[in-house]
Amino acid sequence: MIILLRRGAAKKDIEQLREDLKAWGFSLHESTGTTESLIGIVGDTSTLDISTIEARDCVETVKRIAEPYKKVNRKMHPENTVIDVRGRKIGNGSLQIIAGPCSVETEEQILTTARAVKEAGATMLRGGAFKPRTSPYAFQGLEAEGIKLLLKAREETGLPIVTEIMGEEDLPLFEDIDVIQVGARNMQNFKLLKALGKVKKPILLKRGLSSTIEELLMSAEYIFAGGNNEVILCERGIRTFETMTRNTLDISAVSLLKQKSHLPVCADPSHATGILSLIEPMSLSLIVAGADMLEIEVHCTPTRALSDGSQQLTPDAFTELMGNIKRMAEFLGRDIG
Amino acid sequence: MIILLRRGAAKKDIEQLREDLKAWGFSLHESTGTTESLIGIVGDTSTLDISTIEARDCVETVKRIAEPYKKVNRKMHPENTVIDVRGRKIGNGSLQIIAGPCSVETEEQILTTARAVKEAGATMLRGGAFKPRTSPYAFQGLEAEGIKLLLKAREETGLPIVTEIMGEEDLPLFEDIDVIQVGARNMQNFKLLKALGKVKKPILLKRGLSSTIEELLMSAEYIFAGGNNEVILCERGIRTFETMTRNTLDISAVSLLKQKSHLPVCADPSHATGILSLIEPMSLSLIVAGADMLEIEVHCTPTRALSDGSQQLTPDAFTELMGNIKRMAEFLGRDIG
Amino acid sequence: MIILLRRGAAKKDIEQLREDLKAWGFSLHESTGTTESLIGIVGDTSTLDISTIEARDCVETVKRIAEPYKKVNRKMHPENTVIDVRGRKIGNGSLQIIAGPCSVETEEQILTTARAVKEAGATMLRGGAFKPRTSPYAFQGLEAEGIKLLLKAREETGLPIVTEIMGEEDLPLFEDIDVIQVGARNMQNFKLLKALGKVKKPILLKRGLSSTIEELLMSAEYIFAGGNNEVILCERGIRTFETMTRNTLDISAVSLLKQKSHLPVCADPSHATGILSLIEPMSLSLIVAGADMLEIEVHCTPTRALSDGSQQLTPDAFTELMGNIKRMAEFLGRDIG
Amino acid sequence: MIILLRRGAAKKDIEQLREDLKAWGFSLHESTGTTESLIGIVGDTSTLDISTIEARDCVETVKRIAEPYKKVNRKMHPENTVIDVRGRKIGNGSLQIIAGPCSVETEEQILTTARAVKEAGATMLRGGAFKPRTSPYAFQGLEAEGIKLLLKAREETGLPIVTEIMGEEDLPLFEDIDVIQVGARNMQNFKLLKALGKVKKPILLKRGLSSTIEELLMSAEYIFAGGNNEVILCERGIRTFETMTRNTLDISAVSLLKQKSHLPVCADPSHATGILSLIEPMSLSLIVAGADMLEIEVHCTPTRALSDGSQQLTPDAFTELMGNIKRMAEFLGRDIG
Repeated sequence: MIILLRRGAAKKDIEQLREDLKAWGFSLHESTGTTESLIGIVGDTSTLDISTIEARDCVETVKRIAEPYKKVNRKMHPENTVIDVRGRKIGNGSLQIIAGPCSVETEEQILTTARAVKEAGATMLRGGAFKPRTSPYAFQGLEAEGIKLLLKAREETGLPIVTEIMGEEDLPLFEDIDVIQVGARNMQNFKLLKALGKVKKPILLKRGLSSTIEELLMSAEYIFAGGNNEVILCERGIRTFETMTRNTLDISAVSLLKQKSHLPVCADPSHATGILSLIEPMSLSLIVAGADMLEIEVHCTPTRALSDGSQQLTPDAFTELMGNIKRMAEFLGRDIG
Repeated sequence: MIILLRRGAAKKDIEQLREDLKAWGFSLHESTGTTESLIGIVGDTSTLDISTIEARDCVETVKRIAEPYKKVNRKMHPENTVIDVRGRKIGNGSLQIIAGPCSVETEEQILTTARAVKEAGATMLRGGAFKPRTSPYAFQGLEAEGIKLLLKAREETGLPIVTEIMGEEDLPLFEDIDVIQVGARNMQNFKLLKALGKVKKPILLKRGLSSTIEELLMSAEYIFAGGNNEVILCERGIRTFETMTRNTLDISAVSLLKQKSHLPVCADPSHATGILSLIEPMSLSLIVAGADMLEIEVHCTPTRALSDGSQQLTPDAFTELMGNIKRMAEFLGRDIG
Repeated sequence: MIILLRRGAAKKDIEQLREDLKAWGFSLHESTGTTESLIGIVGDTSTLDISTIEARDCVETVKRIAEPYKKVNRKMHPENTVIDVRGRKIGNGSLQIIAGPCSVETEEQILTTARAVKEAGATMLRGGAFKPRTSPYAFQGLEAEGIKLLLKAREETGLPIVTEIMGEEDLPLFEDIDVIQVGARNMQNFKLLKALGKVKKPILLKRGLSSTIEELLMSAEYIFAGGNNEVILCERGIRTFETMTRNTLDISAVSLLKQKSHLPVCADPSHATGILSLIEPMSLSLIVAGADMLEIEVHCTPTRALSDGSQQLTPDAFTELMGNIKRMAEFLGRDIG
Repeated sequence: MIILLRRGAAKKDIEQLREDLKAWGFSLHESTGTTESLIGIVGDTSTLDISTIEARDCVETVKRIAEPYKKVNRKMHPENTVIDVRGRKIGNGSLQIIAGPCSVETEEQILTTARAVKEAGATMLRGGAFKPRTSPYAFQGLEAEGIKLLLKAREETGLPIVTEIMGEEDLPLFEDIDVIQVGARNMQNFKLLKALGKVKKPILLKRGLSSTIEELLMSAEYIFAGGNNEVILCERGIRTFETMTRNTLDISAVSLLKQKSHLPVCADPSHATGILSLIEPMSLSLIVAGADMLEIEVHCTPTRALSDGSQQLTPDAFTELMGNIKRMAEFLGRDIG
């Protein structure tokens, strides 16, 4: 961390700052130029509040240099984290495809869809039982009943289940779920992140609508700090000024996350674009960019869906997409599943 | 709601759409032009999923015309909602000033600050007991102990207490709190919003970092839908490309919220700007724009604060600010408190 | 400027960097810690390309500390720049109100509007002769003929004229114009900025839709660098994710620009919001925030306007607004005109 | 276009609106429901000012339904536009790779780089002679001299030249240039677009930093409206809240532009990311997403570059990248060149 001192700062204020920093256990390296004077701080500054240093009269500005994320940082842990979900490996170079409906609606709907995506080559099943909806009047999900139907679908197809949690008090319902998803709107629900740090299950952590890459890594750090080292990061589109797509899919974030962190990276082209005709090109681009996993919405009858019908593929369209995904994976020398 | 049909759509698809819409209880008004054909839908469309209608082959696009928020809409309820907090009225034209530290840190800190802001003319006391922090290594708040210290400060100063909740499981701790704050990162924590809909206390609902004005109103609608009609909307800066200020304070949102909704509107210039020298001009601008309430951070010793030191005013600076606020309120014919 | 060296960088690369920096005339201050090593550079780094320094293997990152704008920086020139336009002073604490139609359309339209805004108390007249329009099929302005009509309106009312230029080749047409406006889309049209640096007239420089405050100051710096020291900065709303307002009016930028620079600051609530009912509250807020000047659209018959009808005030509405502006100016002890 | 009437609007206002619309040559389709009344307008509404319709008392809101871009719309012209540049075809399914330095600096630099990129397989040469720089103190390009050096490089290597224009008055210098580039900051420099509409040369039109996809298409429409049908659209990253990458590369825009328009689409991973390690994964992703062309910065000695050193590849790194691009092109069945 570097502290730039204000020109003309009072000597006694600077002296006080030096003393405080030393008292907090840091060693200092000072550099005094004709126009600017700096104090470089050496030590673990992750608990130091930049803003409070900046509140001092003698300080012009403070620049953090070390990355604030530690445990999820590739520099600290150069090897890829590989997560095992019922024998499927995430992060070892293979490709996992999660598919399924936006919401679990009925037994018939989830079973029909599960069979179809299994048949097409999906390696995991998704389906929302708890649905975060902007409107209190929209369908809110089947909740506990939805979880039961997902487990039934797993029983029949063998596909591991990925489904979203919305609050820590629902955790007992997720005991048999394979991967717990945290939605974009909860990426900085720190209570929930702390609770998930205590869980022994992989967490699929979606990037918030306007969360930076660094904030996503810091939210993963919360889960690690609690003791759970199985986190999958997920890019799902960010909010920008562009309105033609639902969100702007930040594919560069996928490559960058792979470089900055050792964690596996997933991406969700369905939510990111909200446009059916973009799902195939974006899926293939994401694989090329290094995604370990894709999450794609498929519904047996999208025109009857209780939510997000227009971004859900039919089983036929998904089968065609999987054909192209398989060819690309083969070209890249990556296994699916 | 208006459905624009795709050119060359199959007649049987259109017929099916018509039948479905009628079966769902809507009446239809059709208009067929040479280049475009529309179906206008009359009835309460708030539960209709636009995306699922758009999934149909015969549909080009769907435009919602009615505003999706009902109970918080000024059209439905033209009179201002006025909320009473220990005798102080919010929303009746008067001005309320919430002041206090970012975090509750020690008994001495909160009591000293509370006395100072009371003396300067603040009408309510704030202080964070539960702190949402980007880093798991940063100070997370005194939690239950912080709530106790706030109540002690109320006992001494008589100032009503505003403090933030981070999860529904902590609700019992807020039983004696006067106004429960929902932070920006939890604006779409729908579990929490539903829980607060059951509470008999005013909720100060902060706009999310990248939440639209409509989404803020929809989150207030969640609380209303649960049965709690005491919501104060709060603008606290949105995330944009600008980095010189911490966030971009959207003052036009304050005026627009007053026009679109009957709810009182608060604003937080401290978090919005993160810059001390902007707090005074922004406070006065917000009052002129129609804010019913301001929330301003004050700390007895900002350079010793455990969080956000650089945006917290000293008691002296706050006293000076209050002088200017009082003169402006007097000019506008508005009472403080 | 501070250069953070990469851990484990080759000594000879660092040596080469040191030599190059010294050869370019800088003096260096080094600081070597156990985990990080820095080189602080003293001297005028405004011509140094950060990116090219960062391209070196031995460099982790480079942080600029000095503000890149010099001539427009208040630190270099603490006194307010005051610009005189036909006897009206901009930047001396008084308030100037530019009013007039979005586009000059006909002689009758501009004369009628000019008389009305004069009568209501406006101190300058605006009107677009060259119109930047997103669509090539939209009305593009009367061009040279529009300029003539504006000069006629000045002759009749005495109001100085503010109008927009779109390319340097049109400069001869602006010879009699009082203030030349640069629109948001041309804020970084550097050819135009260079040409305006050679002109002896005040320039009203609008902030680009997604330009940072620093970039706005750098564009003003271009005009100064060419020799023209009369620049008025103008906040006109920035592009964000919010769609309920046309743009997001960044009122904090007005206060911040006054602090960072000695230049006068204008604001345009009409373009910023695009909503009639917001023009009054935003105008008053902007004045309170420190704006030296407002630019407000007024049209004798908005429903017949050739552009932007919905954001133009009628003369009656403008007269009412001016009443409120006058009362606020009086309260603040500021003269109008 | 659909006009939603305000509830309780005066009958005579509505009658006036109807009359005006008919007088302007439109046919109307009305639909009156119990809660909302609409007027649908049939005809070419591209010259109608929505805002001015919305200014009427009787109008609640206006929704445009037809896309405002006509000539560049794939609906009007389903076949791909194919542009021929010295025998190389852009838009016919093949892949073109433009490579070269950010700025032309010296004869040796541009010739060395040109030879290297030719050798590695680039099909066109780029190099900036006119440089748009945020700071007036930064290197501004060699201008006319730079153009001469580029032509010399073409003479030697046979590579067609792509270089940026900054103002219409420089057009004579571009007479021998093969493709004229319009930079992001000039995407809405309408004077320049109009001038380029009169030129008989392909235009590479870069998307503005905060321009929507629709605005990019409207800027291409300007060039078409002037008579020049050879436009290449270019995605180069948009400005968002994310700061870890220089811009956010919107790869979905590439696929969407190919669907919405018949024009060829280029992308620039160098400017979009500003990070060397992202250039390869983003280049490959862009090809998979459907880009017809990539523009990649290469410099013989990036650490000595006069601009943007850190995002320019060395010739060796570019050679390696071209190897991967060739393999991907072969897999996709696309020719390079």
